[in-house]
Amino acid sequence: MAVVVGDSAVFSLRLADIVQAIGGELVGDGQVAVEGLAPLDRAQSRQICFLSNPRYAAALPECQAACVIVAPSMRDAALDRGTTIVVQDPYLYYAKLTQLWRRRFGEWKGDEAVGAGGWIHPSAVVHLHAEVHPSARIGPLCVVERGARVGARSELTSRVSLGYDCIIGERCIVHPGVVIGADGFGFAKDGERWEKIEQLGAVWIGNDVEIGANTCIDRGALSDTVIEDGVKLDNLIQIGHNVRIGRNTAIAGSVAVAGSATIGANCTVGGGSLVSGHLTIADGVHLSGCSCVSKSITKPGVYTGVFPLDEHGDWERNAATLRQLHRLRERIRQLERERQP
Amino acid sequence: MAVVVGDSAVFSLRLADIVQAIGGELVGDGQVAVEGLAPLDRAQSRQICFLSNPRYAAALPECQAACVIVAPSMRDAALDRGTTIVVQDPYLYYAKLTQLWRRRFGEWKGDEAVGAGGWIHPSAVVHLHAEVHPSARIGPLCVVERGARVGARSELTSRVSLGYDCIIGERCIVHPGVVIGADGFGFAKDGERWEKIEQLGAVWIGNDVEIGANTCIDRGALSDTVIEDGVKLDNLIQIGHNVRIGRNTAIAGSVAVAGSATIGANCTVGGGSLVSGHLTIADGVHLSGCSCVSKSITKPGVYTGVFPLDEHGDWERNAATLRQLHRLRERIRQLERERQP
Amino acid sequence: MAVVVGDSAVFSLRLADIVQAIGGELVGDGQVAVEGLAPLDRAQSRQICFLSNPRYAAALPECQAACVIVAPSMRDAALDRGTTIVVQDPYLYYAKLTQLWRRRFGEWKGDEAVGAGGWIHPSAVVHLHAEVHPSARIGPLCVVERGARVGARSELTSRVSLGYDCIIGERCIVHPGVVIGADGFGFAKDGERWEKIEQLGAVWIGNDVEIGANTCIDRGALSDTVIEDGVKLDNLIQIGHNVRIGRNTAIAGSVAVAGSATIGANCTVGGGSLVSGHLTIADGVHLSGCSCVSKSITKPGVYTGVFPLDEHGDWERNAATLRQLHRLRERIRQLERERQP
Repeated sequence: MAVVVGDSAVFSLRLADIVQAIGGELVGDGQVAVEGLAPLDRAQSRQICFLSNPRYAAALPECQAACVIVAPSMRDAALDRGTTIVVQDPYLYYAKLTQLWRRRFGEWKGDEAVGAGGWIHPSAVVHLHAEVHPSARIGPLCVVERGARVGARSELTSRVSLGYDCIIGERCIVHPGVVIGADGFGFAKDGERWEKIEQLGAVWIGNDVEIGANTCIDRGALSDTVIEDGVKLDNLIQIGHNVRIGRNTAIAGSVAVAGSATIGANCTVGGGSLVSGHLTIADGVHLSGCSCVSKSITKPGVYTGVFPLDEHGDWERNAATLRQLHRLRERIRQLERERQP
Repeated sequence: MAVVVGDSAVFSLRLADIVQAIGGELVGDGQVAVEGLAPLDRAQSRQICFLSNPRYAAALPECQAACVIVAPSMRDAALDRGTTIVVQDPYLYYAKLTQLWRRRFGEWKGDEAVGAGGWIHPSAVVHLHAEVHPSARIGPLCVVERGARVGARSELTSRVSLGYDCIIGERCIVHPGVVIGADGFGFAKDGERWEKIEQLGAVWIGNDVEIGANTCIDRGALSDTVIEDGVKLDNLIQIGHNVRIGRNTAIAGSVAVAGSATIGANCTVGGGSLVSGHLTIADGVHLSGCSCVSKSITKPGVYTGVFPLDEHGDWERNAATLRQLHRLRERIRQLERERQP
Repeated sequence: MAVVVGDSAVFSLRLADIVQAIGGELVGDGQVAVEGLAPLDRAQSRQICFLSNPRYAAALPECQAACVIVAPSMRDAALDRGTTIVVQDPYLYYAKLTQLWRRRFGEWKGDEAVGAGGWIHPSAVVHLHAEVHPSARIGPLCVVERGARVGARSELTSRVSLGYDCIIGERCIVHPGVVIGADGFGFAKDGERWEKIEQLGAVWIGNDVEIGANTCIDRGALSDTVIEDGVKLDNLIQIGHNVRIGRNTAIAGSVAVAGSATIGANCTVGGGSLVSGHLTIADGVHLSGCSCVSKSITKPGVYTGVFPLDEHGDWERNAATLRQLHRLRERIRQLERERQP
């Protein structure tokens, strides 16, 4: 289905093939072929797009796409425009369509090994006593140490370090630069010196986990650091030793989770946040970006702790006053005491 | 010009050669040779230094350097001291002098390839269908995937990952550990599970971009992530998918820019800050370190949002009061209502 | 002492051997062998654990461990339970016990080189003019550039970059992905363009320093960036050019220290904090996590600057009020002026 035209190639999928592969109700000509996915407001005549957020519905009539994916509530408006696929959840459908696209054309665009099943790149350094499932893929310049295990269909993309005895489940994706199983940060004071506490645990990662570029997950001190099934970690995240992250929790970039923190299932953590050590966050907690958790959170909900951004002069005045805040409260109390009863 | 003395070598440049190469008015003996650059307060008799910030002018009479670079306003004070180069912008001149120094002596100090034009280190893994300009340099243990392109005189120093279809312009410097083109962080909810949104875009990097160690720039979901000409990124920065960063913007270390944020041209972002996703920052915005942008910024200016640091006890009292701040406001209102008209 | 049982092995140490190796008063049968270390509340009958924090003393009677390590103050309570090792500092003793465990069994669990003295992995790229001590270890896929030096018994674990002319002392541990000696972030403005300031200094690292995964330490602009003896750096830390960090200071993960900052000896810095550039922090300062230092700190003590976390609705009200804080202060002043004298 890839047609080479001069130096480049055109990939195309017929709408009928799309709905056959991933479902949905097509209203329009199934023989129409699309050559790519695009955002609603920028889609061209040979592309397909989706409308998920009703806020963007106003852009629908002007949309140039060959086909728009919409929810049942937008059906009439979409049909007025032209060819449409109607599905319960357009955003989820879009996710599946990107996967279809990658499956069809990834083999051609990616390197020689994609789709070819298991593979260890000759430049990777894999210990003889590591276990790599035959369907797993170890990309260029990875290091897999003794006793490490990589499950079925998991991929270490490139330049990943997987430390000794650390375990990765099935269908995981580990992006470049990730370090799994470096020593946790543990020292005991001996006078002014720090005495190293050897980190004797490992890292245990479940199935369907994705780990972003240059993220680090430290090995446990005694027992293991645990990342449960379905967890998604973005780039440049620090996961300290003996942290446990519950099922399907998603953590955005540049977050730090300190040692022995436990984060529940189905949580989301916004970018740049810090979770202090030795505390517990309940299931279903959503933490805003740039926030700092220093006590356990026992109830689901949305939590925030961000200093509001302001023009520098305004910030300066407010910040200066903030340093006297408890004295201001005293002055209010004093005024309250003095008032006429 | 490198004179080997025992085990080490002395590099020296005559002042006359310096002003011939990069300009400036030399007042003093051009035959004097300098063997290094140093800060004003620590320069020794065979070194050259600069005075840029008038705050440090008081240190000028004591300065031991062979030559001081100053602005016209400091000319008389500098001549009283001794040999001087007078230039419009001493700090810029210093930058050019460091470059001259590196060009002259870098060949000797660096590895075998510096100055030798294009070069791919034998330990790098470069796909047959990647395009590396003959004058570009791919250092040890880099990975360059299929369809990636590296422009003229650009350098991937070492241990850099450049993902498939990602493009780097001319004269770029990419420091060790950088990951360009890992998947953006995109998932659609399917019940409690996350369904992966394949990231079908790439990364486009312009000319004269510098990218610091272990920084990550994710590929776009549909269209590309874009870093415009002249952008400077420090270390450990996270750039999410479909971010666009405008010309000559400089971002300090450990900043996170979430997906689909647009940062204008000629901005500066202080270290450790967070820019939330799907917002726009105008040209000429300067963001203080440790600040969190959660709404678009439409006017140039300096913006800050940092909790002021304090001794822990004082902080604790103020922070506790802060949690009742809106109630304090109510009490002030109440007092205002109650006062005698 | 490793007994292979089927596919796995059992490691065990007799209590008498432990106290012979690292001291302590054993009360109980020295012939008892332990097969591992565990936390007090999870230790099983063939494991050893320690009680350091008196808060956990209530768990002592129920503890199943073969032996508990306690301080003299807990001696009686521990003896009531059973076999005990009494030492001045149980946490420090635990650190030494982990080291003993690693020394005894690491050879068997680790890769072929551990304990075998000096070693350069064949996949590492080490410049002919780098100096690696015969007892140092350079792991897989490291890059060591010209003029770099690695001292006795130091280890670059894997995928570490050590830049030209950078020096690492003795007994250092450098975890995967670390970048030492990338260029500092230095540019001079030339109109709207940034002119690069070549970074002509290097990095100097003392003895007994540990550096966590994916941490970056930039080379100095003119003089060197300096990490003194005994410093411990966690993962994903950014150390800017010409920073100096004093002896035995420990910095937690995801901290950024901007250029030319000086941090004293025996400090601790909590995770996710930012230290701005060109300032000085005294010896013995303890900085809470998620805090931002923007002025020098001249006195030892604990310092904090964190916006307290709250439920999002409460935070929103308080944050909105915070932006009017200096006006609230004016209103309080007004009320004070108006009150009856």
